[in-house]
Amino acid sequence: MKLFTIGPTQSFDVVLKEKNKLIPYFRTDDFSQVVYDVTDKLQKMMFAPDGSKTIVLTASGTAAMEAAVMNVFSDKDKLLVINGGTFGKRFTQICDNCKLDYTEIKLSFDEEFTQDTLSCYSNKGYTGLLVNIDETSIGKLYDIKIISKFCKENNMLLMVDAISSFLCDEYNMSENNIDVTIISSQKGLCCSPGLSFITLSPDALKKIESEQNRNLPLYYDFADYLNNLKRGQTPFTPAVGIVYECLASLSYIESIGLQNFLNSIAEKAHYFRSKLSDMPVEIPKFKKSNAVTTVIFEKPVARKLFTYLKDKYGIFIKPCGGENAEYMIRVAHIGNLSKNDFDMLIEKINEFLTMENNV
Amino acid sequence: MKLFTIGPTQSFDVVLKEKNKLIPYFRTDDFSQVVYDVTDKLQKMMFAPDGSKTIVLTASGTAAMEAAVMNVFSDKDKLLVINGGTFGKRFTQICDNCKLDYTEIKLSFDEEFTQDTLSCYSNKGYTGLLVNIDETSIGKLYDIKIISKFCKENNMLLMVDAISSFLCDEYNMSENNIDVTIISSQKGLCCSPGLSFITLSPDALKKIESEQNRNLPLYYDFADYLNNLKRGQTPFTPAVGIVYECLASLSYIESIGLQNFLNSIAEKAHYFRSKLSDMPVEIPKFKKSNAVTTVIFEKPVARKLFTYLKDKYGIFIKPCGGENAEYMIRVAHIGNLSKNDFDMLIEKINEFLTMENNV
Repeated sequence: MKLFTIGPTQSFDVVLKEKNKLIPYFRTDDFSQVVYDVTDKLQKMMFAPDGSKTIVLTASGTAAMEAAVMNVFSDKDKLLVINGGTFGKRFTQICDNCKLDYTEIKLSFDEEFTQDTLSCYSNKGYTGLLVNIDETSIGKLYDIKIISKFCKENNMLLMVDAISSFLCDEYNMSENNIDVTIISSQKGLCCSPGLSFITLSPDALKKIESEQNRNLPLYYDFADYLNNLKRGQTPFTPAVGIVYECLASLSYIESIGLQNFLNSIAEKAHYFRSKLSDMPVEIPKFKKSNAVTTVIFEKPVARKLFTYLKDKYGIFIKPCGGENAEYMIRVAHIGNLSKNDFDMLIEKINEFLTMENNV
Repeated sequence: MKLFTIGPTQSFDVVLKEKNKLIPYFRTDDFSQVVYDVTDKLQKMMFAPDGSKTIVLTASGTAAMEAAVMNVFSDKDKLLVINGGTFGKRFTQICDNCKLDYTEIKLSFDEEFTQDTLSCYSNKGYTGLLVNIDETSIGKLYDIKIISKFCKENNMLLMVDAISSFLCDEYNMSENNIDVTIISSQKGLCCSPGLSFITLSPDALKKIESEQNRNLPLYYDFADYLNNLKRGQTPFTPAVGIVYECLASLSYIESIGLQNFLNSIAEKAHYFRSKLSDMPVEIPKFKKSNAVTTVIFEKPVARKLFTYLKDKYGIFIKPCGGENAEYMIRVAHIGNLSKNDFDMLIEKINEFLTMENNV
């Protein structure tokens, strides 16, 4: 089995080794230390400002997005949501569900995100911006510099879903005045799915504290998590095993060096994309995350290719949803994958396309 | 390391073996089949009535309790909550948080649950009852027959948190007219923590459908889960690895036979309890779950014993919380533990107590 999917991913050996261990009981000082280590390392790698806190939430990325929105924003806020695909839409659904006042900035597939995308919303009383910095559904990376500048000028809180970008692309909370970073265990960290983290800047923490009398689900109540975090614990039983996996992954990345780690992903992304240029496929022209490449076929063969690779070779690529399902696939560049693996994938895709053309 | 804790537990070898595998991509027919198998086997083992559905929620047991309450009950309901400890209290907190109309039946540590406990609430317009059938914090097992009869006579929905009782004690939804069963992966199933299941009877499903215009968090919206369940999927990325672990565990229990499996746990519970009778400790007089035994010491040594066993032998027992923390511990009888393991534990506890007495 070889995973070119972006969550689950082809895990690192150190993570698999950690996963093989019996999960210990967790209401102990030893596990508290693991939680401290994981949240410290995460904050270091995302360059979180001093005084940031990281919530450990046992749930998918959507729950983390929802919990973050519910804790940080209220009906006093006026929000901007960048919606460039499935996960941008999810932010709008969460805002709808929370009855929050928001404006949706909808971007079509090919539409580049530029300064002009935001300029008309300046000085309109917006208090917060929500963005999936890599819109995972198509692999489009928005320019954080543009967003950051806009938010700073307009004194807005900046909430970033970095689920498929953190530990794949450069990511710096301090430099870009990011107040909330949402990530999950199964993307850049290449661990098992089931765990999410929300890092809150001092400004985000202040905002949460200022929001009183909200009716949060117990499971989403960050105040309770922050209180338990003081002793390195969570209010409810966490996915203990995945916390250990995350520590193994972070320690591994640390040992390589974050920049080297990111460079290696970037290299693989560029390598794969350059190889595609000889093939009868296209890749999007927009700015892409290094995490993943969307491959566009001339004919509606994407689903068939997915099944072919899975059944014949145990290779998993990621299908696309909705109207793109028949024409697009996504290939991840993260995890334990080498250039050889991408050569092999290219070969198998070519094999499939040749076969299709001869049918 | 040896775990006498009730979640994480000393996992079965088949579960550990499953855990060692690379987690595959999950939006596939293969994974759908795994979800069907897991939910089918769960329903069979809890004797769920025909037409029941099982929600797969990636979150702790508390989230499952909260989601179940929010989906099934509304402000039109009048609820009874049996509160005999930490987890009964959690149900009341959830009801408070949801602004539900409920009456708390508070039981003290030693108080037996009898027919009289409920009789005064008959014919008072109650529509639902919430109970932790084993109050995990002390290991007290309530008599499901009494509760079931009461709910049937009063035409009430019965919601059971069976998190620490299912696959430890006898459990039968059909026979006892249970409408909602909440369980988690890390208790009777002896898998990694991080996954919960909510099984809904046809009556519970009807009730959920009848509740319109509620403002559920997206992550808790059972309608969405039920819709995705038709294709064997979840709306959001689940803890894929733990779903596989659960299948391994359920298949293992099936191969042994459910009744044999339960008998073996009961045997170990009785064996351990009989051994304690020679020691200067007490066990509660109330009806106990086979999952766990609360051991009460004469002196405030419980915390010290916990640390002694952990640091000297890598043995984990479960501390108690609150006012019981210094006098009580809990010992689980589930998972991959033999009579020899309990002999060994007894020996080490005796060693500790002798040492304490000689200090």
